[in-house]
Amino acid sequence: MKQKIGFMGLGIMGIPMVANLLKAGYPVMVYNRSPEKADPLVKQGAGLASSPQALAKAADVVIAMVTGPEALNDLLWGPEGAGGAFNHSKVFINMSSVAPSYTRQLAQELTPSGVIFIDAPVSGTKKPAEDGTLLILAGGPQAKVKELEPLLLAMGKKVIYCGAAGQGSMMKMFINLLLGIMMEGFAEVLNFGRIGGLSLEAMLDTVYSGPLNCAMFQMKAPNLENKTYPTAFPLKHMTKDAKFVVDTAFEMGAPVPVGQVLVHLYRTGVAQGWGDEDVSAIARVLEYFSPKA
Amino acid sequence: MKQKIGFMGLGIMGIPMVANLLKAGYPVMVYNRSPEKADPLVKQGAGLASSPQALAKAADVVIAMVTGPEALNDLLWGPEGAGGAFNHSKVFINMSSVAPSYTRQLAQELTPSGVIFIDAPVSGTKKPAEDGTLLILAGGPQAKVKELEPLLLAMGKKVIYCGAAGQGSMMKMFINLLLGIMMEGFAEVLNFGRIGGLSLEAMLDTVYSGPLNCAMFQMKAPNLENKTYPTAFPLKHMTKDAKFVVDTAFEMGAPVPVGQVLVHLYRTGVAQGWGDEDVSAIARVLEYFSPKA
Amino acid sequence: MKQKIGFMGLGIMGIPMVANLLKAGYPVMVYNRSPEKADPLVKQGAGLASSPQALAKAADVVIAMVTGPEALNDLLWGPEGAGGAFNHSKVFINMSSVAPSYTRQLAQELTPSGVIFIDAPVSGTKKPAEDGTLLILAGGPQAKVKELEPLLLAMGKKVIYCGAAGQGSMMKMFINLLLGIMMEGFAEVLNFGRIGGLSLEAMLDTVYSGPLNCAMFQMKAPNLENKTYPTAFPLKHMTKDAKFVVDTAFEMGAPVPVGQVLVHLYRTGVAQGWGDEDVSAIARVLEYFSPKA
Amino acid sequence: MKQKIGFMGLGIMGIPMVANLLKAGYPVMVYNRSPEKADPLVKQGAGLASSPQALAKAADVVIAMVTGPEALNDLLWGPEGAGGAFNHSKVFINMSSVAPSYTRQLAQELTPSGVIFIDAPVSGTKKPAEDGTLLILAGGPQAKVKELEPLLLAMGKKVIYCGAAGQGSMMKMFINLLLGIMMEGFAEVLNFGRIGGLSLEAMLDTVYSGPLNCAMFQMKAPNLENKTYPTAFPLKHMTKDAKFVVDTAFEMGAPVPVGQVLVHLYRTGVAQGWGDEDVSAIARVLEYFSPKA
Repeated sequence: MKQKIGFMGLGIMGIPMVANLLKAGYPVMVYNRSPEKADPLVKQGAGLASSPQALAKAADVVIAMVTGPEALNDLLWGPEGAGGAFNHSKVFINMSSVAPSYTRQLAQELTPSGVIFIDAPVSGTKKPAEDGTLLILAGGPQAKVKELEPLLLAMGKKVIYCGAAGQGSMMKMFINLLLGIMMEGFAEVLNFGRIGGLSLEAMLDTVYSGPLNCAMFQMKAPNLENKTYPTAFPLKHMTKDAKFVVDTAFEMGAPVPVGQVLVHLYRTGVAQGWGDEDVSAIARVLEYFSPKA
Repeated sequence: MKQKIGFMGLGIMGIPMVANLLKAGYPVMVYNRSPEKADPLVKQGAGLASSPQALAKAADVVIAMVTGPEALNDLLWGPEGAGGAFNHSKVFINMSSVAPSYTRQLAQELTPSGVIFIDAPVSGTKKPAEDGTLLILAGGPQAKVKELEPLLLAMGKKVIYCGAAGQGSMMKMFINLLLGIMMEGFAEVLNFGRIGGLSLEAMLDTVYSGPLNCAMFQMKAPNLENKTYPTAFPLKHMTKDAKFVVDTAFEMGAPVPVGQVLVHLYRTGVAQGWGDEDVSAIARVLEYFSPKA
Repeated sequence: MKQKIGFMGLGIMGIPMVANLLKAGYPVMVYNRSPEKADPLVKQGAGLASSPQALAKAADVVIAMVTGPEALNDLLWGPEGAGGAFNHSKVFINMSSVAPSYTRQLAQELTPSGVIFIDAPVSGTKKPAEDGTLLILAGGPQAKVKELEPLLLAMGKKVIYCGAAGQGSMMKMFINLLLGIMMEGFAEVLNFGRIGGLSLEAMLDTVYSGPLNCAMFQMKAPNLENKTYPTAFPLKHMTKDAKFVVDTAFEMGAPVPVGQVLVHLYRTGVAQGWGDEDVSAIARVLEYFSPKA
Repeated sequence: MKQKIGFMGLGIMGIPMVANLLKAGYPVMVYNRSPEKADPLVKQGAGLASSPQALAKAADVVIAMVTGPEALNDLLWGPEGAGGAFNHSKVFINMSSVAPSYTRQLAQELTPSGVIFIDAPVSGTKKPAEDGTLLILAGGPQAKVKELEPLLLAMGKKVIYCGAAGQGSMMKMFINLLLGIMMEGFAEVLNFGRIGGLSLEAMLDTVYSGPLNCAMFQMKAPNLENKTYPTAFPLKHMTKDAKFVVDTAFEMGAPVPVGQVLVHLYRTGVAQGWGDEDVSAIARVLEYFSPKA
């Protein structure tokens, strides 16, 4: 018997994730502040809840995929919030990207209700969400994560167990810091080579032919080539995530010398008005710093 | 008819490169300051020259693979230097890693002799040199590079044409800057995650399962895991290369905000006495900056 | 008729500030979590309140000088908190160092009570507090700040009007960022010169003889000379302040490229266990990064 | 009996320095590539040499004050160079700003001639050169520096003995690094405060009223206020000096984490076309990185 799912948050990520749950045969009820977003999913068989609390009452497993702490707090603790219907027989999975410190605080707030709390942010954006190939970074009780794996694998290709609740978010930051470094690094070296007179073609050929080659470079190279940055992962979100990482690192005393520089670089991109472009628009920042041709 | 090769510099790279030339059927004469290094190659059929000039006289194509500008200048312009035997019927290929500015100056110094000058540094270290899978980054007259491709492919898997002489070195710096950034980035995020309580296993699993995965990470991960850094590419060479890049960027006005930080980080590793360890020992620098457990 | 003062927080700064208020003839009542700290002040004529609220009831002007937001929140909104006794006939002056964002939020929380809120952090540490030569950076209604000037000048040598409530804190961060940069800069150049073979004496002579000379360098030079760092302003507080600045700059999009590097450097000092030493112990961080002699 | 002086290099600095030597009663002969620059000095009593060598033959003490190593090499070793007339009865004082490594190499090149070599770069720009209040940073044999003090004090207010030849240049870099840091720091905090809503007047009042106040800030504040940067010390020279420092630090392994950032920032200013403005135009770089109002 498949669990009844309640899904809150129907953005770029949420809609395809629900679609994949439905395809996998899960009964899903959805809630979104703007209910019209649910229309296509309702056509595919989803139910529509009138409030987060109604959704949580009807569901075995409540999943949230929203833009950040504020939205999540509203859904959980606002009027008719889901939190009011939580109890020890239910599971709450937060798949939204938030700081580990927020997740640990959330875990404490949820404790009195008895709900089983899993934090399971994802690595991957729109396309993997549609293809069901997200990487799911799960924190919480290990046995429970194991038990929920079939459900999670309806949305992703792999579940990585990261430790207690909060460690999923920590892993998300870990991988996003690496993304931020590699994306900036790619843009930095291509800009350096360009100024030094190398052709983009030869530079990419060199990268692709050696041990530094990775799928991300191949995905982003066309943006850098065309100097257009259609948004898969917005620069402003990378900026926010980089700030999360650097703040967390500061608390722990972990040195992130490159991360610290990145915050400044990505933030400059936002300040120049490119926050809604793709993260690969960091190339614009490097060009902005360069001598004008 | 295969060209007669004269090869100067029998270090970690030079020895297997000559061995591969011999295997491919090229007649090779070698020169090295310490001639005993040539013994195994002589057994495989190489001739041994008494001086760089003797070598250059006997060869159609002279190849140099030495540690830097000083060694190269000695071989070319020192007593009985190869430069004295250069003429327009000969080709000189410098495969040593040097700065683009040095290469451009070298090109000028070679002009009066009429020798055809190719700069062709390689990407790849000991293992690819042995396997003949180096990536060869060639600068010089394009038709000549094309013509020499069979010879170059005896030592490598691919030749990338980079532009005029000097641009091979520029491409080498381009790719080494990316290597330096990715190596440090990998070490930085793993150290961050470790302090944040993530297991190395889960972190590597996360990297390997996503679009940031690359062969270099897989090669270097065991070093970071075992905290031993057997040298494939020495930290001190990465440091020197990073300085080349940053100096070249300064001349051109290219921003290398992360490259600039890297110089400091790698240099700190050298200052602490880890210069002869592998470049992956940058992990020791990050640990050195971290709170003691 | 002098205002009746209620003073909360009897630390390194608070004690001499109260002593100066008493000397200037103000009636002062004090409150401190550990009441024994009040003993010397009681001998000098101060009254001792049993709770923050009792203190606030008795006073015209309530002053807080505590270590940060947590302590301040406790005193204001904890059990028997001062906030409960605030009304439109009273003035509340926060002289503790806090972030501008916190101050603006505090201003909002205080609004319903009608209390007149002044934020007035100080520049200067123990010695200026004792000598009554603090620099007072005041934010709030300008006429009210003017009116309170005689009271503030009992503790300091000068009042600088900075704008609305919150701008005192902003100015504090402004000047502390400059302090952090100059202190690190002084240590960085002296360490550079030392490694380059210059004598400390000649370096100081050069600084003191030119337009970069400032009182702070003269105060801190003996610490650097003796390699002992008796605490006037703790390294950990500088670290916290630098983080405030960088966070505020991030929110606003202000570039603080050097500030950002400083956070890392000062934080490294704290991670190495030197947080309770004077800010001038940043010299230890630079030595820590240097080659061992 | 005053020494006969030969002075090479009649730029912004050289002209007033020669004028001060003449005022102090020294017989001075001058040489400059563009001889018309000498006219006003000839009117004041200077002799005009037809070549550097003629000048060196006639002088007891040869002083050079030129823009860098290339100009200096020309004057010393070019056709009719001064170097050809050097011998053990003459003194050569280089007051031009060059890297310590260059100075040490120059010392070696001068050794065969027997000339006594002093390196004596100055701290201070146009105005102090005119007023005879330069700070002279002297390296070389200590007794000889002592003996030459009266001559040097005709051009400056103080001579600081820095060690062997090369250490004068080292000290120059030491003080210029501090200048670069403080100038950028001043611009960085004023830009931060401006974005945070503080008035320039209140910010300057705060700086001037505390222990961070220094003459340089007071000199440069009007530039920042008016956003015009009349050149006392060009941004491009600061950039070059910062690069010298960072290169020297790299060689020695000295950490200059802020210096390294500065090179990037000042270089960006040059890349944007502001190299000929005053060093205080670093404020333009910070504005360039800021959100547009």
